Amino acid sequence: MNSIQKPISIITGGAGFIGVNLINHLLQEDRTIYLLDNMSRGSRFFVENAPGYNEDCVKILDIDCANPDSMYQAFKSISHLGVIDEVWHLAANSDIPAGILDSKIDLKDTFLTTFYLLEAMKIFGVKRLFFASSSAVYGDFGDISLVESLGPLLPISNYGAMKLSSEAIISAASEVFFDQVCIFRFPNVVGVPATHGVILDFINKLIVTPESLSVLGDGSQQKAYLHVEDLIQAMLVVRAACIKKIIQVINIGPLDDGVTVKWISEQVVKRVSPSAKIQYGVGNKGWVGDVPKFNYSTQKLQSFGWKPQLNSAGAVNQAIHEIALQLGK
Amino acid sequence: MNSIQKPISIITGGAGFIGVNLINHLLQEDRTIYLLDNMSRGSRFFVENAPGYNEDCVKILDIDCANPDSMYQAFKSISHLGVIDEVWHLAANSDIPAGILDSKIDLKDTFLTTFYLLEAMKIFGVKRLFFASSSAVYGDFGDISLVESLGPLLPISNYGAMKLSSEAIISAASEVFFDQVCIFRFPNVVGVPATHGVILDFINKLIVTPESLSVLGDGSQQKAYLHVEDLIQAMLVVRAACIKKIIQVINIGPLDDGVTVKWISEQVVKRVSPSAKIQYGVGNKGWVGDVPKFNYSTQKLQSFGWKPQLNSAGAVNQAIHEIALQLGK
Repeated sequence: MNSIQKPISIITGGAGFIGVNLINHLLQEDRTIYLLDNMSRGSRFFVENAPGYNEDCVKILDIDCANPDSMYQAFKSISHLGVIDEVWHLAANSDIPAGILDSKIDLKDTFLTTFYLLEAMKIFGVKRLFFASSSAVYGDFGDISLVESLGPLLPISNYGAMKLSSEAIISAASEVFFDQVCIFRFPNVVGVPATHGVILDFINKLIVTPESLSVLGDGSQQKAYLHVEDLIQAMLVVRAACIKKIIQVINIGPLDDGVTVKWISEQVVKRVSPSAKIQYGVGNKGWVGDVPKFNYSTQKLQSFGWKPQLNSAGAVNQAIHEIALQLGK
Repeated sequence: MNSIQKPISIITGGAGFIGVNLINHLLQEDRTIYLLDNMSRGSRFFVENAPGYNEDCVKILDIDCANPDSMYQAFKSISHLGVIDEVWHLAANSDIPAGILDSKIDLKDTFLTTFYLLEAMKIFGVKRLFFASSSAVYGDFGDISLVESLGPLLPISNYGAMKLSSEAIISAASEVFFDQVCIFRFPNVVGVPATHGVILDFINKLIVTPESLSVLGDGSQQKAYLHVEDLIQAMLVVRAACIKKIIQVINIGPLDDGVTVKWISEQVVKRVSPSAKIQYGVGNKGWVGDVPKFNYSTQKLQSFGWKPQLNSAGAVNQAIHEIALQLGK
C-alpha cells in the first residue's frame, strides 16, 4: 500500500506540543499525516524529532489556519492525494495572558481557525473531527465538581471563551455534516517538546537567575496536570469507542485534584537549581483569567475504561525532568 | 435637566423589533437613547412610530456594529455628549435559516457585533451590559427541562452557536471590566413591528395566496412564545434586581410549554383568511437547526417576582392581531 492510498489525517497546529506527540500513534494506524501549522510555537525541528517520524508519511504545510484561502487551498491539494479521513484540530493561541491583553489574538488563532476549518471540512466532505477544547470553558465554579453536564459556562479568559465558542460552532456544524465529533476538554497538559506553561517558565527563569525563582501569585492555586502521553491515550480510547455517537463532550484529566503551584516550584528548584530561593507574589490567581482552584471530574472518561499512567504529581515530575533535558539542564 | 446631562443608553440593533419596544420604557427613566443599527431589518420608520418617541431624546446612528472603526467612532462621539450608562446589545442576524446556508452571516452579525461592542465598551469605560441571548444556545435536549445550570450546550444552528459564543466572550470581558451584566436567553418573542418569524411569514403567505397556507414541517413542533411587552418587563425587573451581581444568565419565557405550529397556523387562518386550507410538510423540524420541542424553565426568572401578562397562546393571538394590522389586514 503506498502512501497515496492510506487514509489521511490532518492535524491543525500539528507542529506544536500535542500534535508532535500524536504523530507516532497515528502512524501506527498506517496513515498519512498532514500537519497544518503557522509555526508560531510549533516547529519543523519538533516534527522531525518526533518519535516514529518519517518524511514519507508526515508532511508539513506552513500555513495560517485562520486564513480561509490558505485553508481552502490546503484541503484542496491534500484531497487530490487521497481521502481525508479525519481532522485533529489543535491549532489555537496557547498564551492565555497574551489573549487577555489583546482579545484579537484568541479571536483569530483560537476561534477563526475553527470557523475556517469547518468551512473547509464542509466543502471537502471531511466527516470526522477531534477537537482540543479546554477546561477553561468552565470558568470559576469554586468547589463545584466540573462535570460535562454543568452550566452556565462563564469562562473568565478570552482563551476559554474562544474555546467555548469553537465548541458551539462545531456543534452547529455537526448537526449538518459530521459523522463523528469528539470535543475533548483538556486539563493542563505537560511533557515535551514544551512550548509554554508553568514548568517551562520556571526552568527558563532559573536558567537566567539560578539563585531565585519568582512565582506569580501566592502559589496556592491548585490544578490537575496530565502527561501528554496519557492525554493522547485518552483521546484514542474515546475516538475508538464513540464511532457511532455524532457528538461527544469529554473532560480529560487525571483522577486526582492536582497539585499547587508552590509544590511545582519546589520540584523544579530541586531538579534544576537546588540552592534557589522561591519568592511568591500576592493573591491566588497567577493572572486575570487564571482559575484558582479546579475540581475537575473525569468520571465520564473513566466510564470508557481509561486510566492514566501518572497522577498530577507524577506527570509534573516526569515533565520537569523531560523539559530540563530539553533545555540542556 | 437638558438631554446632554441625562444618562445615556445605547441600544445596538435598536431600530429593530425589540429595540423599538424598549425605547418608551427607557425614556420613562429620563434617558437619552442612541440606537446603533445597520437598518438591515430595523428602520427609521419603526423608531419614529415607536410609543413615546421624541426626536430630542432618541438618536439614530446608521452604522454596522460589526465594523470596529464604526463602533469606535460612534462610542467616541456619543461619549463626548454625556456619560454612557449602559448598553442593550440586541444587534444580531435574526434570520436563522439564512445563517444555516451561510455561516458567515451569523459570524459577522451575531458574533462580531458582540466582539467589537466589547472592544468599544472597554475603551470608553462603559460598565453595564444587557445582552439578548437566545434559548437556541441549548440545542436539542429532548424532554429535559432547560434550566440555566444545564450543559453541555450543543446548539444546532449557527445562530445559537454565535449567541453562545457571544455569551462566552461577554463572560470573559465581565471578569475584567464590567460592573453589571445580564445575559437574557430569549424565547420566541412576538409582537410588532414584526420583522421576521412564523406569524409574519404565515400572514405574508396568505396575502399572496389567500386560499392556502403551506407550513414547513408537520406542524407538531411546539415552542413557547412571549409577547414583547412581557419580555421587556422581565428584563427591566432583572436589571433592577441584579445591580450588584456582576453576571447573571436568565431564561426569559412564559410559564407554559408553548403552542404548536399547527395551532398557530389555524389561528392565523381564522384571523386573516378563514377559507384558506392549511397544507403541512413532513418531519417535526421546520428547517435544519430548528428544535422540535422545547421544555423551557423560567423558574429562576420567576424567583425575581416576575409573571407574564400573557401565556403563549395569548401572546400569539395578540401578535397575530397586531401583525395583521401592521400589514393592513
